[in-house]
Amino acid sequence: MDSRTLIRFLFLFFVTAVVLLLTCTNVPFSDKPENLTENRFFQSNLKQPSKPTTTTATHRHASAIPRHPLDPLTVTELHDLRSTLLSHALFQNSYAIHSAVIEEPEKPVVLTWRHGDPLPPRKAEVIARVDGVTHVLIVDLGTRKVISVDVGEHSGYPTMTIEDMTSSTWVPFENAEFNRTIMARGVDLKDLACLPVSLGWFGKNEENRRLIKVQCFSTEGTVNFYMRPIEGLTVVVDMDTKQVVEITDKGRNIPIPKAAGTEYRYSAQNKKVNLVNPISMEQPKGPSFVIEDDHLVKWANWEFHLKPDPRAGVIISRVMGRDPDSGEMRNVMYKGFTSELFVPYMDPSDAWYFKTYMDAGEYGFGLQAMPLDPLNDCPRNTYYMDGVFAAGDGRPYVRSNMVCVFESYAGDIGWRHSESPITGMEVREVRPKVTLVVRMAASVANYDYIVDWEFQNDGLIRVKVGLSGILMVKGTPYINMNQVNSSENLHGTLLSENVIGVIHDHYVTFYLDMDVDGPQNSFVKVNIKRQETTVGESPRLSYLKAIRNVAKTEKDAQVKLKLYDPSEYHVVNPSKKTRVGNPVGYKLVPGGTAASLLDLDDPPQKRGAFTNNQIWVTPYNRSEEWAGGLFTYQSKGEDTLAVWSERDRTIENKDIVMWYTLGFHHVPCQEDFPIMPTVSSSFDLKPVNFYERNPILNIPPNTEKDLPVCNVASSA
Amino acid sequence: MDSRTLIRFLFLFFVTAVVLLLTCTNVPFSDKPENLTENRFFQSNLKQPSKPTTTTATHRHASAIPRHPLDPLTVTELHDLRSTLLSHALFQNSYAIHSAVIEEPEKPVVLTWRHGDPLPPRKAEVIARVDGVTHVLIVDLGTRKVISVDVGEHSGYPTMTIEDMTSSTWVPFENAEFNRTIMARGVDLKDLACLPVSLGWFGKNEENRRLIKVQCFSTEGTVNFYMRPIEGLTVVVDMDTKQVVEITDKGRNIPIPKAAGTEYRYSAQNKKVNLVNPISMEQPKGPSFVIEDDHLVKWANWEFHLKPDPRAGVIISRVMGRDPDSGEMRNVMYKGFTSELFVPYMDPSDAWYFKTYMDAGEYGFGLQAMPLDPLNDCPRNTYYMDGVFAAGDGRPYVRSNMVCVFESYAGDIGWRHSESPITGMEVREVRPKVTLVVRMAASVANYDYIVDWEFQNDGLIRVKVGLSGILMVKGTPYINMNQVNSSENLHGTLLSENVIGVIHDHYVTFYLDMDVDGPQNSFVKVNIKRQETTVGESPRLSYLKAIRNVAKTEKDAQVKLKLYDPSEYHVVNPSKKTRVGNPVGYKLVPGGTAASLLDLDDPPQKRGAFTNNQIWVTPYNRSEEWAGGLFTYQSKGEDTLAVWSERDRTIENKDIVMWYTLGFHHVPCQEDFPIMPTVSSSFDLKPVNFYERNPILNIPPNTEKDLPVCNVASSA
Repeated sequence: MDSRTLIRFLFLFFVTAVVLLLTCTNVPFSDKPENLTENRFFQSNLKQPSKPTTTTATHRHASAIPRHPLDPLTVTELHDLRSTLLSHALFQNSYAIHSAVIEEPEKPVVLTWRHGDPLPPRKAEVIARVDGVTHVLIVDLGTRKVISVDVGEHSGYPTMTIEDMTSSTWVPFENAEFNRTIMARGVDLKDLACLPVSLGWFGKNEENRRLIKVQCFSTEGTVNFYMRPIEGLTVVVDMDTKQVVEITDKGRNIPIPKAAGTEYRYSAQNKKVNLVNPISMEQPKGPSFVIEDDHLVKWANWEFHLKPDPRAGVIISRVMGRDPDSGEMRNVMYKGFTSELFVPYMDPSDAWYFKTYMDAGEYGFGLQAMPLDPLNDCPRNTYYMDGVFAAGDGRPYVRSNMVCVFESYAGDIGWRHSESPITGMEVREVRPKVTLVVRMAASVANYDYIVDWEFQNDGLIRVKVGLSGILMVKGTPYINMNQVNSSENLHGTLLSENVIGVIHDHYVTFYLDMDVDGPQNSFVKVNIKRQETTVGESPRLSYLKAIRNVAKTEKDAQVKLKLYDPSEYHVVNPSKKTRVGNPVGYKLVPGGTAASLLDLDDPPQKRGAFTNNQIWVTPYNRSEEWAGGLFTYQSKGEDTLAVWSERDRTIENKDIVMWYTLGFHHVPCQEDFPIMPTVSSSFDLKPVNFYERNPILNIPPNTEKDLPVCNVASSA
Repeated sequence: MDSRTLIRFLFLFFVTAVVLLLTCTNVPFSDKPENLTENRFFQSNLKQPSKPTTTTATHRHASAIPRHPLDPLTVTELHDLRSTLLSHALFQNSYAIHSAVIEEPEKPVVLTWRHGDPLPPRKAEVIARVDGVTHVLIVDLGTRKVISVDVGEHSGYPTMTIEDMTSSTWVPFENAEFNRTIMARGVDLKDLACLPVSLGWFGKNEENRRLIKVQCFSTEGTVNFYMRPIEGLTVVVDMDTKQVVEITDKGRNIPIPKAAGTEYRYSAQNKKVNLVNPISMEQPKGPSFVIEDDHLVKWANWEFHLKPDPRAGVIISRVMGRDPDSGEMRNVMYKGFTSELFVPYMDPSDAWYFKTYMDAGEYGFGLQAMPLDPLNDCPRNTYYMDGVFAAGDGRPYVRSNMVCVFESYAGDIGWRHSESPITGMEVREVRPKVTLVVRMAASVANYDYIVDWEFQNDGLIRVKVGLSGILMVKGTPYINMNQVNSSENLHGTLLSENVIGVIHDHYVTFYLDMDVDGPQNSFVKVNIKRQETTVGESPRLSYLKAIRNVAKTEKDAQVKLKLYDPSEYHVVNPSKKTRVGNPVGYKLVPGGTAASLLDLDDPPQKRGAFTNNQIWVTPYNRSEEWAGGLFTYQSKGEDTLAVWSERDRTIENKDIVMWYTLGFHHVPCQEDFPIMPTVSSSFDLKPVNFYERNPILNIPPNTEKDLPVCNVASSA
């Protein structure tokens, strides 16, 4: 074979391998749903998940039927949906299904529905591109009719399909210039791994056609190819025509960093170290939660509906807490989910400036959530929930073990009091803290986002985002900082020879439709302010007081957090008071925060303008769920939360939605190489005069007789 | 008996009961150390602690000998110390020992000492009041000589002794006016519980005599007497003469709140609720840490010295992390501890304005740490460490189970990466996160502070403070908010009928003597700033860059955190670089923060001026350990961290100490009644280019065969 033939052969080999892998990772159901194959690819690698806690957890997706108005589309429904679509005139043309999810019934319908009632009509919302035009369709699954068709009104394109992402990365291989430059760098085509990088919007170049930038890496000698960038080489690809639009090649003088030291797989470690003995959370009587009808989670004082979603990852709905006195289940939150992510990198150069990812709207946060690893991603006694999604052709596939639910006990204290030597009374009362965690982990190419919804039995909900995975790095000729002129800006940290970890931010924006004891709520800023005393009033000159300000309109509720002008942020039900007359409420407790500092007129910041404040409150509106807009991809930012909020609608004593953005500035350090220890940040939703008193006053302490008797595993 | 006789009888009965309780709670050693009694009072209530993990953990205090230069004084040493003091001329007069702790050897001596070397001379630092004058004595325990005697130079008095606190509360009982007003309120003297409240300094009234304010509560019908204040009644007591100085009685029209609903003991609950099945952290092969020579903790990559301290609570010293490549133990921190707390309440009225507690310097954070409750304060497989302290007369006593050490696994993820559908490669690597926790819980009268030092095997140290226990509440005539005029400031939240939870702040200031690869360090603010691009440079208008600013002097290192002007805060060793040339360092990652907003000239804020910034850095100085000053009690604030820092000494490439203050604003809510669910906040010390790479790359994932086999306890 001459070298061209070899390249072609390798290319074909590579493409075949990729197609094979993809087919296996997201195994579609055949049209005969009884012929089930679930994610065979990972199955072999999986330990048997722990015993499911409910009899409905056997994942018999083929025969699954919806039992709750909010249940996601089942395999059967997705098949039916596809048939309905394919028989519609529109779909006689070339099409791609970008999203097919349950069209949730109107809120009042869901709120009045009771277990045992017939389900409201099941409808699907489909986002499809047909002949290059984006359509939003509503399909009635009962009548098998398309009941509405809309074409998208805003700039931007829908979330990419998995097929978009993968097929784009093959396109450059057909380009001779691309092949030449790869060869010139001494990289074997068989060692090439390419990534589809969303390119945002900066002007005319990113308008009127659906584009992607492809950048490549060498996999030679490592599975961690992210550490071996072919720096400066960017191929612009038209995702619809599958053609190369432009190639930029500005890094020829930059060596590809070494493979040595980049492997993170356990099997590839030379020196293995056992730092700790086995430790495990054990529950001799089994976990305390049940999951009814596949999606309804009941644990301790809590009940909520849980479903995987291709865009949001996980959607938590109908969150209710049990009143310890009345036993009544009281509404807390109608719906909560990860609405959007915004991840701008801080390098303005040609191969980097556009890296301003919006992972939910561009890539699908749920689409990127891979099967969780039992015993490592989640502990023993975990319940695993699968995602059932539609592929680009509309066929259903199962993402197994996508979400996990488990109880956690870290040795923490729920509440305690000892009487001290001062009083000398014999009192010591301590209650252990046990929580329920709902987890998913999305791997958006290199990065891994771990999203936890943690429920405490005292009424607190903690939403935590952990960052792990692998840095997006930049090649550099430098191998030591002593080569770098002090005036030069590396845009990051030299992590290893020829490797710079580029500075970036992460913003994760949550949609929180709070319904505190019902939908009609108000947002109250409880401002904590210094009050000077008057002369003679007190030996004190000053003290702090709390001033309640009810937000009348959206602009009143645009909050930039300030350490020296602090507030508490309450969502209250103005029509409901406690026994002693306080409005019942939940407060948002911001966690470790970072604010976006980019220029407000910078195109990425316009698109990510939902990060201009840390908190926003909007009136409930079915069409306002995605903070970066329904069509985020290449959008100009004219459909973001920031734009909606500028309308300044009234929000007092209304059905309102609160939005909170967790932020991280990430200046990489060497400890992040070659894979990052998890960094987490969280915020809390905490009852504030929601319960009349501490709701876990009457739970028992641990006693020796209740705890398990454990032995070393016989096989150990 | 007439009523006076009855009162006298009851008073005597009460005093006897209190004395009895105290004697039992802090059982002093007799002069014959073999006659040991450890904390009998709580012992009966204690479950047997889990198996100790080292053979030295049998707490044979009588025969304990020091084995490390930093070890606390042993029982024998305290006995010897007392003999030495009593034979000194000074102690022929009336005296009280306020503190007797090891005088740590000079830092170079400790740093060069190696296991097996003879111990440097053992010395004690004693703070004693003799005939009303504060003395600081250094005693050589080898030669049994007092080698220096100093009288305190600053305003203020030493930390109260337990005897000061308890005896003050009896003084009012001898006062007829006090008895009359108690009777007038219909409270039986036998139902009276009184607390010693430190009164700060506001001017001449708090000078030249050692005073305390005593406030009382009714214990009738509840152990939670804190919820039944006798509002407005304040008795000023001279702690030295044990005389009533003044009585203020301004709350006669305020009813004492009901006892109903205030009980938190499990035994007193009518309706008990089991929300969850038993859950436990199990370690079939035992815990992975060892504690050598009673105080040297070794776990995973970590080694440190741990000791209880009467003022700080817990002192962590000589913290070293193992380099994963060289195996070398590398210095991280020389010494870390809770230096001071500042807890100002936000009510300027007569009975409240002075409540501006400094719990370490006034009450002794360690003195208030009570025995931990096995299985509830700390999980199974915990090691418990006792405190050995000196009583007011110099005799040693044991506070058993004061500190606990355990491994924690909450189901969290140390690091992870899955390859995504985008690349389709078969990779999924996840490592569970296991940590080591050192915990104590101080009950400073009503409040409980849980302090955790949590070590992660990736090099991160998390310092967490949890607040639980019982609110300090104020009596009020109101039983519903509808009675309150909207212009009226309640200074808090109506929690229950006649009960207001008063707004307050908590500041917990930590001393962090970082020695990153040795004592000579610099403090670097890595400022994250927007950089606008130049015309034509990039389609981007802006990006963020990191600018390193080395702090030259103390004032450069006075930091107020700003969300919109963020920095990272590094302590680096300027003489040591990584392989690729980054300075090795650790960064302080601030946690949820609150800043003090009081007027800087307000007397409490002058005394608590160490909270004027969140971060400070000072040059190492043996005499600067207590942020509120060595003699905090009634001090004017002329010996605080803020005053030291104003000297603006150079701190570049020097042995430096970093100070960080965790802050909480607490606007109480009904869920805090009658006992508060724990609220936590934390900060991290995180390696930043300290290790060449992720230091836990080569640890194994969990596998089923390593985990325990557990059964329901047969007794359950």
